[in-house]
Amino acid sequence: SRSLDLAVIPGDGIGQEVVAEGLKVLSAVLPQDVKLETTEFDFGARRYHATGETLTDADLDALKGHDAILLGAIGDPSVPSGVLERGFLLKLRFAFDHHVNLRPSKLLPGVATPLAGQPEIDFVVVREGTEGPYTGNGGTIRTGTEHEVATEVSVNTAFGVERVVRDAFARAQARPRKKLTLVHKNNVLTFAGHLWTNVFQRVAAEFPDVTTDYIHVDAATIYLVTDPGRFDVIVTDNLFGDIITDLAAAVSGGIGVAASGNINPSGAFPSMFEPVHGSAPDIAGQGKADPTATVLSVALLLRHLGYDAEAGRIEEAVSADLAERTGNPARTTSEIGDALAVRVAG
Amino acid sequence: SRSLDLAVIPGDGIGQEVVAEGLKVLSAVLPQDVKLETTEFDFGARRYHATGETLTDADLDALKGHDAILLGAIGDPSVPSGVLERGFLLKLRFAFDHHVNLRPSKLLPGVATPLAGQPEIDFVVVREGTEGPYTGNGGTIRTGTEHEVATEVSVNTAFGVERVVRDAFARAQARPRKKLTLVHKNNVLTFAGHLWTNVFQRVAAEFPDVTTDYIHVDAATIYLVTDPGRFDVIVTDNLFGDIITDLAAAVSGGIGVAASGNINPSGAFPSMFEPVHGSAPDIAGQGKADPTATVLSVALLLRHLGYDAEAGRIEEAVSADLAERTGNPARTTSEIGDALAVRVAG
Ligand SMILES: CC(C)[C@H](C(=O)O)[C@@H](O)C(=O)O
Ligand SMILES: CC(C)[C@H](C(=O)O)[C@@H](O)C(=O)O
Repeated sequence: SRSLDLAVIPGDGIGQEVVAEGLKVLSAVLPQDVKLETTEFDFGARRYHATGETLTDADLDALKGHDAILLGAIGDPSVPSGVLERGFLLKLRFAFDHHVNLRPSKLLPGVATPLAGQPEIDFVVVREGTEGPYTGNGGTIRTGTEHEVATEVSVNTAFGVERVVRDAFARAQARPRKKLTLVHKNNVLTFAGHLWTNVFQRVAAEFPDVTTDYIHVDAATIYLVTDPGRFDVIVTDNLFGDIITDLAAAVSGGIGVAASGNINPSGAFPSMFEPVHGSAPDIAGQGKADPTATVLSVALLLRHLGYDAEAGRIEEAVSADLAERTGNPARTTSEIGDALAVRVAG
Repeated sequence: SRSLDLAVIPGDGIGQEVVAEGLKVLSAVLPQDVKLETTEFDFGARRYHATGETLTDADLDALKGHDAILLGAIGDPSVPSGVLERGFLLKLRFAFDHHVNLRPSKLLPGVATPLAGQPEIDFVVVREGTEGPYTGNGGTIRTGTEHEVATEVSVNTAFGVERVVRDAFARAQARPRKKLTLVHKNNVLTFAGHLWTNVFQRVAAEFPDVTTDYIHVDAATIYLVTDPGRFDVIVTDNLFGDIITDLAAAVSGGIGVAASGNINPSGAFPSMFEPVHGSAPDIAGQGKADPTATVLSVALLLRHLGYDAEAGRIEEAVSADLAERTGNPARTTSEIGDALAVRVAG
């Protein structure tokens, strides 16, 4: 018999509620012979206030042995901005070398979009996850004075760019349209821009059947609202990826349905799956949160571990559930989870 | 009698065509007693190919004496990416200390937007223009090898942040809603983020009647498509400003109508006004370009020089012209310019 050994980090705010539904659907979809084991971790604001810790070496060791990690949301207004982001979320991505940050955007039938004319949207952003301006390089001098200078250093390596670009090409090749767009700002950030552009062109030679193009990040935001159908797979750096995936989520149904994977393709460390949304403390504990993004993150998790059929069943269930929402009364977090669990089991 | 001494840089592609219309409308709107003098400069791709020069010290000296600069567009596919951007556009912004990059977004009646439901949009982005990741700091080692490392350094100074934040507060104070939003990514870019946040809070104390808030840049892209009406004035860094103003232009009528000013409020150097769009070489020379963004840039130029009534007349003319477009046959670049010139003169 097989087993799936999952580390579960509900986290803060609505994290608890949406993760419960994610696990409900996971249990319902898994084949009988797969033994699901979950270990819950109490990371987040409460632990930080109680102990001052965000993520220790011992924590990382404890997480390491699991097949994958499911995360709800981390963040609370009671914690100064940056503490949990840098001390937990980014620390984990860097420690486990989650260099492929995968964020699919698909506008499903019946789902509301702020765009007029219900355009076709079906693309995947492959965001680099361990470099760029996210490295924490930089600093301040004369801090707090009128002569302060603060720097942020974007660090980009051929090694780091090449592996994520190659991953994106492989994903593009596996899709019907086989198209990959590089998004950067190579006319201004010329040092990093040339590296990204050169590596992209070099790797492209290995994937002659993949169509490529290049768009500046500013122009990419225009296309995301005027012609999102032009995108199939996008590869981009950590910061540009952060920005355009929030916009992508907004136009393709909102962050209530946006899933993501922080993937280490080598398998040396477990990959982590999480909804793109945050902890939304304003609606926490009220059963108002939509667990769909977490459930779709479970689908990404399953596909990453080779459970393709199960992942597909979750995606179909979500599709069907979303299609029936219009005109019907709003449901609670657990009602949505229940409905999805029934669908994937049926 | 007064005079307006303008440096004119038509530049590349459609730059020539749209600047001609901008000048046409400027001549029509100026009071009789103002003598308009224009000096044309041939910067751009042609000059670069002929001489290898983009912007020399002598050029800067020649530009320096003018009251303001009107620019069409610079850029051509025949020039490697970055050469004209860094060597001309950014060089000029930095040399003339254009630290207030002003980009208004207003969705005018009758103008198409990709957003459903024709939302109300009327905000101004004050983008810092001389710091951040645009400074050209950074470099590469082991260039072109599999061990290359490329860095980009975002440089932020209390001096530079404070002057643009103060400018933005003053602009917010002068508007009916008196609201200023800081856009940054202070939870990840913590060095620069804390500087921006602290300076913003300090300056806020001097403007107690201005309402303030803070939004991460990724979330800002969501609001720009789901709730753009929440914004009044936005202040942000050079790169975030670049990205969100293209998105802002897209949702508020497209880059065909987006104007911008690169302003040195001290007047030590002339300010430069330009449409947000580029040189669009694919439609150059065909009379297809919309000169509206350039004409609106002329309005910003006039307001900067104290010709408030004339600026207002241009804006009203554009408003009226746009309102009449739906259902009517497309016009050429010069037909639109003619129509606007008639309106502002009348
Ligand atoms: C919370 C923050 C650190 C994070 C990021 O910037 O990557 C978030 O915005 C995301 O996109 O996952
Ligand atoms: C062409 C480029 C250098 C420029 C910028 O990035 O500032 C443009 O995108 C703009 O917004 O004016």
